[in-house]
Amino acid sequence: MSIAMSKLTVPVFVRGLSILSTLLAKGEAHAAAAGMAPETLLGARLSADMLPLSAQVQRASDTSKFAAQRISGGEAPSFPDEETTFAQLQQRIAATIAYLESVDPAQLDAGADREIRLNWTAEGPVFTGENYLLTFALPNFYFHVVTAYDILRNQGVKVGKLDYLGSFEQK
Amino acid sequence: MSIAMSKLTVPVFVRGLSILSTLLAKGEAHAAAAGMAPETLLGARLSADMLPLSAQVQRASDTSKFAAQRISGGEAPSFPDEETTFAQLQQRIAATIAYLESVDPAQLDAGADREIRLNWTAEGPVFTGENYLLTFALPNFYFHVVTAYDILRNQGVKVGKLDYLGSFEQK
Repeated sequence: MSIAMSKLTVPVFVRGLSILSTLLAKGEAHAAAAGMAPETLLGARLSADMLPLSAQVQRASDTSKFAAQRISGGEAPSFPDEETTFAQLQQRIAATIAYLESVDPAQLDAGADREIRLNWTAEGPVFTGENYLLTFALPNFYFHVVTAYDILRNQGVKVGKLDYLGSFEQK
Repeated sequence: MSIAMSKLTVPVFVRGLSILSTLLAKGEAHAAAAGMAPETLLGARLSADMLPLSAQVQRASDTSKFAAQRISGGEAPSFPDEETTFAQLQQRIAATIAYLESVDPAQLDAGADREIRLNWTAEGPVFTGENYLLTFALPNFYFHVVTAYDILRNQGVKVGKLDYLGSFEQK
């Protein structure tokens, strides 16, 4: 028994982004109720040299978008990181989900052996699609979703572990 | 192209736990250099009602252990959450990795369709092995590894994103 690349990518990312959207909405409501300026919460960080909440959302968008693009070998829309409000970040998440759901599952399935080269340096790193997904894209995607959650908790927003886990896909 | 359950579980968890071990070692060294009591860092939290660093490590151990146990349908050792020092937490991680590496890959591969019932309530939730892995076990495992990292960053420990990503499994 094994799982197709199309099932290991788009549904996993769409699920995580949907949860992130719910977390953000709870953050926005908390800020409003607490009299906190929205930009204060969106600019909150866990340490001075970590990215703030708004950028964690942008990176969750990009890590999932690039994973689908690279594994499928197709093209993806450009998102220039200009969001400064909760509404704009929700639009970014929605646009990312729309792109992910537009990717042909057959192209993703064909990507397990595709050579994937990150452009950090002239030489790479170079992955197979499978290694890229399991040792880079998924850990990186979860990093940004969890860190967004952790920033909200650190700022006193009333979200809990079940908000992060989301509804389960049961048998 | 698809990926076997045995490759989606043990190597992913062993990799994450090994990274967690390195992060913990850097945290211990930081505490020693900064004159911070080890138990202060191990007891650090991102909010008053979140688990401290030591418990994030214990939960990363349990989420990976239970995933391998439930998907393979086998038995796993009991770890009673008695660790209070960095050395004990490193032993916990090592024991978890030893268990994970002892699980028969064929039993994991056979687990994609296995019925998995969590004992939170008499009724479930009930998953297939595949849905359990993708919508519960992996998100939960990454939650605890990332939150351990986030606690260390929040406490001023000099770890960075590349420590979290670890060495890449390249082509």
